[in-house]
Amino acid sequence: AGLVDVNGNVLALDKRKTLARESAEAPVKQIVDSIREVVRLGGAAFSDIRGIGIGSPGPLNAKEGKILMAGNLPHWIDFPLAGIIKERVGVNTYIQNDATVFAYGEWWMGAGRGKDDFFAVTLGTGIGGGAVCGGKLLTGFNDNACEIGHITIDYNGPQCWCGQNGCLEQYASATGLVRMTNEKLINVHIETPLAEYRGKPSELTSKEIFEAAKAGDAFACEMFETAGYLLGIGLVNALNLLNFEVVAAGGGLARAGDMILEPARRALLDRGFKSCVKQVKLVPAQRPDDAAILGAVKLVIDMEVNS
Amino acid sequence: AGLVDVNGNVLALDKRKTLARESAEAPVKQIVDSIREVVRLGGAAFSDIRGIGIGSPGPLNAKEGKILMAGNLPHWIDFPLAGIIKERVGVNTYIQNDATVFAYGEWWMGAGRGKDDFFAVTLGTGIGGGAVCGGKLLTGFNDNACEIGHITIDYNGPQCWCGQNGCLEQYASATGLVRMTNEKLINVHIETPLAEYRGKPSELTSKEIFEAAKAGDAFACEMFETAGYLLGIGLVNALNLLNFEVVAAGGGLARAGDMILEPARRALLDRGFKSCVKQVKLVPAQRPDDAAILGAVKLVIDMEVNS
Repeated sequence: AGLVDVNGNVLALDKRKTLARESAEAPVKQIVDSIREVVRLGGAAFSDIRGIGIGSPGPLNAKEGKILMAGNLPHWIDFPLAGIIKERVGVNTYIQNDATVFAYGEWWMGAGRGKDDFFAVTLGTGIGGGAVCGGKLLTGFNDNACEIGHITIDYNGPQCWCGQNGCLEQYASATGLVRMTNEKLINVHIETPLAEYRGKPSELTSKEIFEAAKAGDAFACEMFETAGYLLGIGLVNALNLLNFEVVAAGGGLARAGDMILEPARRALLDRGFKSCVKQVKLVPAQRPDDAAILGAVKLVIDMEVNS
Repeated sequence: AGLVDVNGNVLALDKRKTLARESAEAPVKQIVDSIREVVRLGGAAFSDIRGIGIGSPGPLNAKEGKILMAGNLPHWIDFPLAGIIKERVGVNTYIQNDATVFAYGEWWMGAGRGKDDFFAVTLGTGIGGGAVCGGKLLTGFNDNACEIGHITIDYNGPQCWCGQNGCLEQYASATGLVRMTNEKLINVHIETPLAEYRGKPSELTSKEIFEAAKAGDAFACEMFETAGYLLGIGLVNALNLLNFEVVAAGGGLARAGDMILEPARRALLDRGFKSCVKQVKLVPAQRPDDAAILGAVKLVIDMEVNS
């Protein structure tokens, strides 16, 4: 949780490891405790708090303040989180998709500042996204917008849990990078320190691939190159629909920096509309650690302060 | 051209075959003549005209009123159309992408009425699109939004002029349908009345495929089935980004109706997010003949009447 003022200054932060699998109540109690903690740390009074904004995995229903299903929080099914937090803390509470608020925070106080048409992509276990179009947060009719991880780039590609085949997430997420690397280790004989994971696919993570690439291993570099280029193809798809001016990349895998962003930029130039793409910038997120908090706060400001 | 009142009533229409290749001036004169004609037909006075809205092929720069390049109008390069028409007719003039105004017209007076999140796709020689998001027309930062025809669904697929491979346009446009049919006629021996086009690919058009399918030819039906299903996959990509509630299909190929829309609906259900897709409707455009005119007029109303 974070305590943030109306100008976007982060006054206090509190981080906890979510007790997600214990019960429905356990993470609720953690949220409430964490809110109390940042108010205390920031030296604020509860009467000063204009609202609470929460970024959550989805799908969710923002209007009703309800989590429909959140992969890693198995007890939260059709869960009226906003109402529960409001009741416990006594302050109006809003929820929105985590990648959506990440994008909104980057737009408000990060890489998207001053840009009316902005996109953010989060590269983690999965891939999420969020957009501001014409200066307005894009949420869609039931808060399912900007699921760029589930844009197919190969309709005959590997099956995804979402119903599609060849989703961007199958290639350019941490999971996708590991999947492609394991596949190549099995099918091709290559000299690489990653060869020790041949036959042990479940032990390989994106961290090992990153370390090997950083140490100069050609095979690991090639896997980042492939993931990055395919990320760029997915971004061209998003660009050709949303026509944004800047796209910021956040999430764990984006910490690889140019190792993944350079090939993505090349794909944008190779494959985007000539009339459009030269003006488009792909940059690292500027607020990777608190953009989601800032975006959730900006939602509260829209609803409680500027309305 | 059309004369339309602020309530969206079409008072007069005038249709001309564009003298596109003659000179830069010829189609300008036609536009001016056509505007004068609808004002006359509608019994209006020029002093009643609040503005002129023009839908044009792009890419274009709406803010500057300039056509950057329009495939079928070879003399219009960096062409300040809005300024020229304003000077000749004496009324404020706005331009926007043709598929964008089509979508805006369908949203205002057709299949998108009352829906805050709406998409329209135009299936012709190429594929265009337009969207209303959160009740606002999506244009993007340089009027290149909603180019759904240039969403790749197979990054190893056939090359497109835009820079990508496997763009939706390669499969689900009239041109794409013909391309796929010719390819199959060459590579597979099939009993079909379309076999007469084997070896004469340039003589086959979507009309012949449509007629054969309507007469019950299994091969022609299969080609529509393929084009429609792939259209649906492209629409899932757009849906997962824009999260619209209704999508309307217009353009010449959409006149095939359920022959192309039914397989597209199946793809939506097969491949869309379960939490979202059941509420999404794919319907034929309700104003296929004048949606673009209505949308261009709605732009004028936004700028001149409601601003």
